[in-house]
Amino acid sequence: MAKISSPTETERCIESLIAVFQKYMKFLSFMNTELAAFTKNQKDPGVLDHMMKKLDTNRDGQLDFSEFLNLIGGLAMACHDSFLKAVPSQKRT
Amino acid sequence: MAKISSPTETERCIESLIAVFQKYMKFLSFMNTELAAFTKNQKDPGVLDHMMKKLDTNRDGQLDFSEFLNLIGGLAMACHDSFLKAVPSQKRT
Repeated sequence: MAKISSPTETERCIESLIAVFQKYMKFLSFMNTELAAFTKNQKDPGVLDHMMKKLDTNRDGQLDFSEFLNLIGGLAMACHDSFLKAVPSQKRT
Repeated sequence: MAKISSPTETERCIESLIAVFQKYMKFLSFMNTELAAFTKNQKDPGVLDHMMKKLDTNRDGQLDFSEFLNLIGGLAMACHDSFLKAVPSQKRT
């Protein structure tokens, strides 16, 4: 019987992103729960509305998975940039 | 003293993506380790070269973090699409 290996860190991340997306029906509840620290740190009270408008590229008032991934990607880039300022970057070849 | 809450699933994912990116200096070693199941399933032996060419948008022969996120995003979209075929999708509002 084929041996089923446990998921790698990357596979687990992809599974989690799908699970989190499925869990939160509302952008606001996602931001106030999963990214509460980020959300509370924002000085501009309208920041979530601005973000939703920018992310909702097809203007249907909803975040589909592709738009949700753009949100995660943007946050990951911001985290990575601040990580690089603390630690010199290594490039992949 | 401010209470430090444990990271949410989304925060942990973003941390993991940065850690995995930092860990693998070579695209091929990443694909053969973190995405071994995906890589082994590919019939076309040239698939990794095609992927690298497509991902390496600035043509510097390396995957920077933004290009890496595009890879993860593409894989997550494919996983999510097959997930939707199995389970009807719910949209966020």
